[in-house]
Amino acid sequence: MANLQDVATAAGVSKATVSRYLNGSLELPERTASLIDAAIRALDYTPNPHARRLSLGRSDTIALIVPDISSPFFATLVGAVEAEASEQGLALALYATLNSPARELSYLDLVRTGHADGLIFVTNHAGTRELAAKINRLPRCVVVDEDVLGADVPKIFCDNRQGGWLAGQHLAQAGHRHVLFVGGVDEMVSGARRHQGFAEGMAAIAGAHHRIERIRGPYTIDAGRAAGRSFVDRAPHTRPTAIFATSDELLIGLCEVLAEAGVAIPHQVSVIGFDDVGPLHLFAPAVTAVRQPVRDLGRHALRRLLAMDGTDPAKPPSEELLDVTLIARNSVAPPIRSFHRNPNSEE
Amino acid sequence: MANLQDVATAAGVSKATVSRYLNGSLELPERTASLIDAAIRALDYTPNPHARRLSLGRSDTIALIVPDISSPFFATLVGAVEAEASEQGLALALYATLNSPARELSYLDLVRTGHADGLIFVTNHAGTRELAAKINRLPRCVVVDEDVLGADVPKIFCDNRQGGWLAGQHLAQAGHRHVLFVGGVDEMVSGARRHQGFAEGMAAIAGAHHRIERIRGPYTIDAGRAAGRSFVDRAPHTRPTAIFATSDELLIGLCEVLAEAGVAIPHQVSVIGFDDVGPLHLFAPAVTAVRQPVRDLGRHALRRLLAMDGTDPAKPPSEELLDVTLIARNSVAPPIRSFHRNPNSEE
Repeated sequence: MANLQDVATAAGVSKATVSRYLNGSLELPERTASLIDAAIRALDYTPNPHARRLSLGRSDTIALIVPDISSPFFATLVGAVEAEASEQGLALALYATLNSPARELSYLDLVRTGHADGLIFVTNHAGTRELAAKINRLPRCVVVDEDVLGADVPKIFCDNRQGGWLAGQHLAQAGHRHVLFVGGVDEMVSGARRHQGFAEGMAAIAGAHHRIERIRGPYTIDAGRAAGRSFVDRAPHTRPTAIFATSDELLIGLCEVLAEAGVAIPHQVSVIGFDDVGPLHLFAPAVTAVRQPVRDLGRHALRRLLAMDGTDPAKPPSEELLDVTLIARNSVAPPIRSFHRNPNSEE
Repeated sequence: MANLQDVATAAGVSKATVSRYLNGSLELPERTASLIDAAIRALDYTPNPHARRLSLGRSDTIALIVPDISSPFFATLVGAVEAEASEQGLALALYATLNSPARELSYLDLVRTGHADGLIFVTNHAGTRELAAKINRLPRCVVVDEDVLGADVPKIFCDNRQGGWLAGQHLAQAGHRHVLFVGGVDEMVSGARRHQGFAEGMAAIAGAHHRIERIRGPYTIDAGRAAGRSFVDRAPHTRPTAIFATSDELLIGLCEVLAEAGVAIPHQVSVIGFDDVGPLHLFAPAVTAVRQPVRDLGRHALRRLLAMDGTDPAKPPSEELLDVTLIARNSVAPPIRSFHRNPNSEE
């Protein structure tokens, strides 16, 4: 197979010139660059990425795997990592798994064999043993946003429990005692911790005198629509008086169905969201939500990854929690008590 | 340097097993996989991606370069390409340039030397000669959404002129004769064609009896805020009666400022957007907008790229335009004529 010298000879330049051109540390005149490119194609020369990086004298590419890049939350997270990578002079290779476990595994293989200097991994479903095993085999990896059980690597999440607590306490303070929690599953830290914090926040104000219904599911617009339909299909006096939609997507689907059904927010039902990445402040009405520090999440993830020296896998994995904040807008009001309220509906 | 046989010997498995494990076509028991990974690390073995692909018997990775992945429009575009790649059994490597020309050039180098089988390139600024030259040196590339002048490759855009025409005609039909066009620059096809179509659409209804003001700039929330501030700072009777914000980001920034200033949409000013990727249907009021076929754009881009055989660079570049549609909601109404209208303000 052709080597660097063959390319240099064919292009009529020095080996060093080809090397520096390939590693991007040298800008050449159009003509020279074209000669080298032609030689590379003619000889089917394959630069060795590892050697290329050595010639750069430093590592230069980080990989980031996310579930669904078209979700504003993940898109913003990726943008933050990209901005931080840019500041650090690093390239960032992104891979979107569409939350498919098979695609996650094949991208993990691609990253392992692709000479990335480290991986930031984000999933949006409960992880598997196989997933954790592949992550543990990487020299440097940080898990962000959602846990992968069994992955012995540093983990960075937003404080989901605190976020749930803020939402529960906010609704209870407004007088709500019968509320609906939408989204997540107990197998995922986001679902389990948001729900736990939500119950604690309600109890902190309402004591035992409250009732929390729950609809489990993914953080998608469709799941939000389904939750909205099951809500509007109920007799008004049997409905919860407030809904906690635990992602922007769930909130959007829910708001669509409530609007179509003519259920007014907050007069007929109070609504509170989670993420606050989308333009909730422009919604009708502006929606109160727990805001995730999504940009900090991205910046922290890359800094934490770069801080790993990769030589101490024995060190127990750390878990870092970033604070969330409640952004109060116009979608939460005191509940309107129905005259026809049927006490049995509270059982 | 260690080769495949060295790794197989060290791991105590066959060369074929290591090869199939590395190309992802073979799932191994944990223990065997760990042995191979350990051998790879111990010997610092670098699989040759080109050879790996040959062993797969088919190409397997496409690259996609976009300006800013945190913008819902680009995020949705990327999601569509990813979904199509997934259907085709291809891996997709994503690179976000933050719209920095320097970063675009270095990612183009990374893609050229990184064995991707083709590139879908998206920029969000007027291209440079150097950018076009690097694109023309790639064996397979498709330019999407925004043109790169001088790039002799297939190009796929939404029909920007048609979109501008639909917006102009819609506002003129509602009775608007003094309107504001926000966003874009003439050096970019999106800006030039949307503005041209907008003027044609207005003229189709209003003839010469109309006036179009224009604020040029990037498709960002900040630019939208700036345009909004310059609008609300004007004496009401001198303001245009309708605004065409030519991206979701511009629209969001504009709506924020109008809301803060208490300028009611559509009673005091009509607003129409472009993109319609964000949840404009939930805004107060729901915003009328020209919808881009962003998912089709992504799907088409990948299909077009895969259809290139890369052996016929002489073929002149094709330009494919995808239809856009106007989604009428509640943000456009007939203009309210001011009693104090000063005719000079129309000069």
